[in-house]
Amino acid sequence: MGSGSWLEIPPGSHFSLANIPFGIVTTPSSTEKHAAIAIGGHVLNLHEFAVRGGFSGLKEFTAAHSAIFSQSTLNDFAAAGQPFHQEVRKYLQKVLAVDTSFPEVLKNNLETQRAVLFLRDEVTVHLPMKIGGYTDFFAGKNHAYNCGCIFRDPKKALQPNYLHLPVGYNSRASSVVPSGTAIRRPLGQFLENASASRSTFGPCRRLDIELELGALLCKGNKLGQPIDVNDAEKYIFGFVLLNDWSARDIQAWEAVPLGPFNAKTFASTISPWVVLKDALEPFRAPGILNEAKLHRYLQEARQDNVHDIDLEVQLKTSEGETATVSHTNARNLVFSFAQMIAHHTVGGCPLEVGDLLGSGTISGTEPGTLGSFLESSLGGKETVRLSESIHRKFLEDGDTITIRGWSGTDSSSLVGFGDCVGTIEPALQVFE
Amino acid sequence: MGSGSWLEIPPGSHFSLANIPFGIVTTPSSTEKHAAIAIGGHVLNLHEFAVRGGFSGLKEFTAAHSAIFSQSTLNDFAAAGQPFHQEVRKYLQKVLAVDTSFPEVLKNNLETQRAVLFLRDEVTVHLPMKIGGYTDFFAGKNHAYNCGCIFRDPKKALQPNYLHLPVGYNSRASSVVPSGTAIRRPLGQFLENASASRSTFGPCRRLDIELELGALLCKGNKLGQPIDVNDAEKYIFGFVLLNDWSARDIQAWEAVPLGPFNAKTFASTISPWVVLKDALEPFRAPGILNEAKLHRYLQEARQDNVHDIDLEVQLKTSEGETATVSHTNARNLVFSFAQMIAHHTVGGCPLEVGDLLGSGTISGTEPGTLGSFLESSLGGKETVRLSESIHRKFLEDGDTITIRGWSGTDSSSLVGFGDCVGTIEPALQVFE
Repeated sequence: MGSGSWLEIPPGSHFSLANIPFGIVTTPSSTEKHAAIAIGGHVLNLHEFAVRGGFSGLKEFTAAHSAIFSQSTLNDFAAAGQPFHQEVRKYLQKVLAVDTSFPEVLKNNLETQRAVLFLRDEVTVHLPMKIGGYTDFFAGKNHAYNCGCIFRDPKKALQPNYLHLPVGYNSRASSVVPSGTAIRRPLGQFLENASASRSTFGPCRRLDIELELGALLCKGNKLGQPIDVNDAEKYIFGFVLLNDWSARDIQAWEAVPLGPFNAKTFASTISPWVVLKDALEPFRAPGILNEAKLHRYLQEARQDNVHDIDLEVQLKTSEGETATVSHTNARNLVFSFAQMIAHHTVGGCPLEVGDLLGSGTISGTEPGTLGSFLESSLGGKETVRLSESIHRKFLEDGDTITIRGWSGTDSSSLVGFGDCVGTIEPALQVFE
Repeated sequence: MGSGSWLEIPPGSHFSLANIPFGIVTTPSSTEKHAAIAIGGHVLNLHEFAVRGGFSGLKEFTAAHSAIFSQSTLNDFAAAGQPFHQEVRKYLQKVLAVDTSFPEVLKNNLETQRAVLFLRDEVTVHLPMKIGGYTDFFAGKNHAYNCGCIFRDPKKALQPNYLHLPVGYNSRASSVVPSGTAIRRPLGQFLENASASRSTFGPCRRLDIELELGALLCKGNKLGQPIDVNDAEKYIFGFVLLNDWSARDIQAWEAVPLGPFNAKTFASTISPWVVLKDALEPFRAPGILNEAKLHRYLQEARQDNVHDIDLEVQLKTSEGETATVSHTNARNLVFSFAQMIAHHTVGGCPLEVGDLLGSGTISGTEPGTLGSFLESSLGGKETVRLSESIHRKFLEDGDTITIRGWSGTDSSSLVGFGDCVGTIEPALQVFE
């Protein structure tokens, strides 16, 4: 099956004509940040495109709309609302289609092509949004169960509240970084072992990943005004992959009684391209069945309230050897983002455009499907043989972790996120 | 002793010439938000003052400096740095002094006086800063001990980590509101009693206060770059009073294992005027002695690392009766804000201009000195007799809580915060 576009889209590209994800880039021709879309191996600068009348085929597209794409974040675009996102995405699909009815806009306009199209390899991607609040949930039921088995009794693996509400906590927005940002191993306090009487200070020894899906919001609610669960998807701008790097030893020592703090706040990496909510609609699917009778504010009418997204984690050593850490699916969630939004606001908390919600770690139930080393190494008790030569309990300096995620099967339907990458740098040598 | 100002400063005013706190106001003559200072019973609009050449006596004061006061938040003023804050504060003290050497600027300039001075009662105060991150600590040792005695054994009241690091968690910035904002009782899930097998949904039944001091930041650090504890005070713009409203029943059910979430995110109230770090310098004092041997990154050279600030909580019923809930002092902290900043960043977390750090609840050790009803009612077991007619375990609808804080003793030295006020509104009637 062809790609459907006059622009070459390499087979297997996550950025098919069915995708059209949005991001923020700088290009070889400008150091100013602008909105862009990814398409095949290319990036289309929407600021340059708008300036050159690229949106002339879109009815009622004004100078104010155009200015949205000249911003250094996607917040204004997000705030313009889902109907506008849908219109823009569909229009760009038409402009890029083989049989486009707007050939003069780009297909037959080499001058505009030269000004707006760049190879993806030659642009720099930046954080797509100014993130006001970052809330991380814990909706991956298998992850919660696996952790419960490690730290407690398998019979009591899930806490009493777990199935009744999407457990979550406020995380730190200022340390959310775009894919490619180096991750420095954090310094902190931890216990050398369970019987230590005094904490040790130094580089984290149990540095871990958390494979998550993130949702970015395009709409807020007022203080004191809950969002109805069946209205909540209207607040979702789109999705990103999220690696919620975690310092397990720091977490174990600090998290009583107020939860994780420095164990999480040193960095969280997101993939650079925001896949619009609409682009993932064809891949809706039910999640893990929740046996609990939910309170009404969490009762969602739709059953297909999560997405069928393949997720893969790869590790590359500083020597360049690679191995697959995990291969799982985003259906492994017991609460949907709509339920997370409903719960987040039921007490009156205001959400804002640009807020990031994390799903919590997504794990399957089998070895090779787990979203953290905490799970695969059974809390650091066992060494995981990722390949003949790569053995890990937790991450080593120089390790590069890449998360990939995609839905669909061929060049005309693949909807993917682009790589979510981070390489571990050695800790700072200070305070010794 | 006189007030030292040509402007009348009522005896006992928290806004003496020694204070000069900054805020954001709208006035009867403009609906635009502008920077202002509080002085006695008046407010001085700094935008109008700057426009009229009010800063003409301040060397090297440019149009760019002037523009800082036309913003709708104090973030740009904060970001201008402590030396600039000090200069501006000292200059305004000179302008307002009885023996001012700049009489033409305001004292003898009735036209400017009419344009820039307003009665405090006729202006509306707004959130002074755009708060990016709000981190709440737990540095009130007596509070931590009291809570530990309620939930555990008095012998093990403090958790093993407590004295070794300033325990804290990310709270929610979007629901920080200025004094005077109504506080709607949150809806949420909780257990009716300890033996309940299923959670109840409805209005919070254990709505509480937390008496805290907040620090607002004027400087950030880069990702991966810790702040030295002995350099950390340079990052503090100033201080506010903070009421970290808490839903104890929701907290008890939701907080395992990731900490408080909806129990806190419905609202946190701050006092409207930012008391500059400099204004509180005369009131430095040692806090609670920490017997633990701290890791080097937390070892502060100064002993007088907190402030001697009187703190008072008052409750007013919907019938207008009032009682004092608590009278304590901000010295009841075992970690300083400098130590909180050092700990917050030791793993590499970036702080930003406008971030709010909460001290944690400040309590003394005796009845009448406690910063929460959780403590005074022994976890809701006992009714607190605040007065002959006012009895409470937790807050009732219609209750108004006012926190006040001040240092100094007379009209020439009083440095106070202004009231930090919130009234409880009944819960929404939804999802029933």
